[in-house]
Amino acid sequence: MKDITQPTFIIDRIKLERNILRMAKKASDNGLIFRPHFKTHQLFQIGHIFKDFGINKITVSSVKMAKQFVLDGWNDITIAFPVNFNEIDEINSLNSKITLNLLIDSIEAFQFLEKNLRSEANVFIKIDCGYHRAGIHYNALDILDTLVELFNISDKLKLLGFLSHSGNTYQANKRSEIVDIHFFVKSKLIELINRYSNKLIVSVGDTPSCSIVEDFDGIDEIRPGNFVFYDWMQYKLGSCDFEDIAAAVACPVVSCGTGKSQAVIYGGAVHFSKEYVQEGSNKNHGQLVSFDKDYTWHKPYNSIYLKSLSQEHGIINIPNTHNIKFKIGEIVLAIPIHSCLTRNLFQNEMIYFIN
Amino acid sequence: MKDITQPTFIIDRIKLERNILRMAKKASDNGLIFRPHFKTHQLFQIGHIFKDFGINKITVSSVKMAKQFVLDGWNDITIAFPVNFNEIDEINSLNSKITLNLLIDSIEAFQFLEKNLRSEANVFIKIDCGYHRAGIHYNALDILDTLVELFNISDKLKLLGFLSHSGNTYQANKRSEIVDIHFFVKSKLIELINRYSNKLIVSVGDTPSCSIVEDFDGIDEIRPGNFVFYDWMQYKLGSCDFEDIAAAVACPVVSCGTGKSQAVIYGGAVHFSKEYVQEGSNKNHGQLVSFDKDYTWHKPYNSIYLKSLSQEHGIINIPNTHNIKFKIGEIVLAIPIHSCLTRNLFQNEMIYFIN
Repeated sequence: MKDITQPTFIIDRIKLERNILRMAKKASDNGLIFRPHFKTHQLFQIGHIFKDFGINKITVSSVKMAKQFVLDGWNDITIAFPVNFNEIDEINSLNSKITLNLLIDSIEAFQFLEKNLRSEANVFIKIDCGYHRAGIHYNALDILDTLVELFNISDKLKLLGFLSHSGNTYQANKRSEIVDIHFFVKSKLIELINRYSNKLIVSVGDTPSCSIVEDFDGIDEIRPGNFVFYDWMQYKLGSCDFEDIAAAVACPVVSCGTGKSQAVIYGGAVHFSKEYVQEGSNKNHGQLVSFDKDYTWHKPYNSIYLKSLSQEHGIINIPNTHNIKFKIGEIVLAIPIHSCLTRNLFQNEMIYFIN
Repeated sequence: MKDITQPTFIIDRIKLERNILRMAKKASDNGLIFRPHFKTHQLFQIGHIFKDFGINKITVSSVKMAKQFVLDGWNDITIAFPVNFNEIDEINSLNSKITLNLLIDSIEAFQFLEKNLRSEANVFIKIDCGYHRAGIHYNALDILDTLVELFNISDKLKLLGFLSHSGNTYQANKRSEIVDIHFFVKSKLIELINRYSNKLIVSVGDTPSCSIVEDFDGIDEIRPGNFVFYDWMQYKLGSCDFEDIAAAVACPVVSCGTGKSQAVIYGGAVHFSKEYVQEGSNKNHGQLVSFDKDYTWHKPYNSIYLKSLSQEHGIINIPNTHNIKFKIGEIVLAIPIHSCLTRNLFQNEMIYFIN
């Protein structure tokens, strides 16, 4: 049993590999390109597990992350983030070394790349199908017509297809809403393929719909990321079973109060992030679970969760009806609310694999 | 002018030094020990500014942070966090090198230190005066009596005094509430001093009350941290003027949408943290400001703020009534909501001083 002295991000390798295998199989069964998003784990070790499963295309969300994974031998990378003009030198450098797929959502960005890229590149057009973050709206056909035509006459920029991210599935209240969003997005992207060319590909990617949906007809590529770990938010959303959650944070208890229905852990916003799930009138910042000596976790404790976080402190809510007692010095395990943000807060040396 | 290519944490040195000088003077004018909390900035350079102002005692919130500042020559450090039993080896090591002040809030922790510390140490008792995070409640006199008596007969542990953190001032709705909390806390701690010994010291430390309050009679030490930078939350709380805010995040615009009253920046939850201030029905995750070519900022833009953050994306809200237009590739500056959490998300090489 590892000696936990500080907040430590624990990854259950068995659950992780099962999650990866399940999604890889789903992609393969549906004839999809599987291009997992590596922003969630940002770890070479987990990259190697994907490699062992035959995956050789990945997605990242920044030039910085692309550079990092190039160092570990990945050579087919989509940066699923609107091209950052200010990093054109780094982009040119990457584009000279690997198969790099870029993302744009404006004519301006097309013109910038046409002018500033030093060699040919593959480009996705980002489509906004309702999430309203980045992307050209699926209905803005005048802009899309112009943009596709610009690609047609370009010697440098090759249009790969249409990419969308349905981040709005994270705000869904039930599984059927996630499915509805997926089918809506799919239909809009297929309309674009029908309008422009069936040689273009359709790439989608949020974990909720990739986890729940079975019908990927008309989709060519999926880019989920969060599914490697899942988390409390995904579990509440219905994207996964509790048994699929592959990450937790181990924290020492440092104060048990006196006559208080709470305990304090070393583990705060700089470890969990301030993300929360609203549960009734409570904010859940991390769900406590029972676990074995080797840190394999079992079940969530009923109503025992992190009710608030400051920089380094987390406060465990303990209902008065519970007879559970925490002791100073003991280790507790909490499932993160949003594993991508939580993992990002840990240096690699504070990440520990079990199983 | 520095070339900003990625989200960069900008510190205005003039404002920073003014904030430090103002607080140092307030401490000195009131005859207080000034033991600033270094968790906010976590930077050697800023430590040196304090040193130049004659400060040689500091506060940190973890053993890890204490070790870091010991490397830079600091040798009188309070770890204002309940003793983490699991780090006793590191604590012993630090205690053999420097003047280390520890914090406990239970008889159990006293007994643990009495047994496991290898040499004498200074200890504060943490008092809960209403924030209800860690600490022994000011009214729990039976526990306090026992604890103080244990210190009296100990050869190893020396009781320094009573320490409190009024984190509840951060939830105050107006300045008068902050002042009320301060006076309440002060009165409770002075009662303890009167009960036990006037050789014990009273240490308080939140930025809102240290910034606003003028009467520190009965207090011996202050430990504010956030005041070096302040932030949008402190400004809204009334702890500082807008002109005092000494930190902002510079981010490239990457998407301007089409027909949308928003723009997207490279700058998300992994740069700002998910902290927000509720302003009417809106969540403000970062306040955009006007600025000069050298990134010196001037005024907040009315109703232009980060309305949502995902991992790497931030969405700027732009009211329809505004005629401001952002362009892809341009840099914007946003004041962080909570500078401690935002600064913590930046590697030192992504921190840049102006002025």
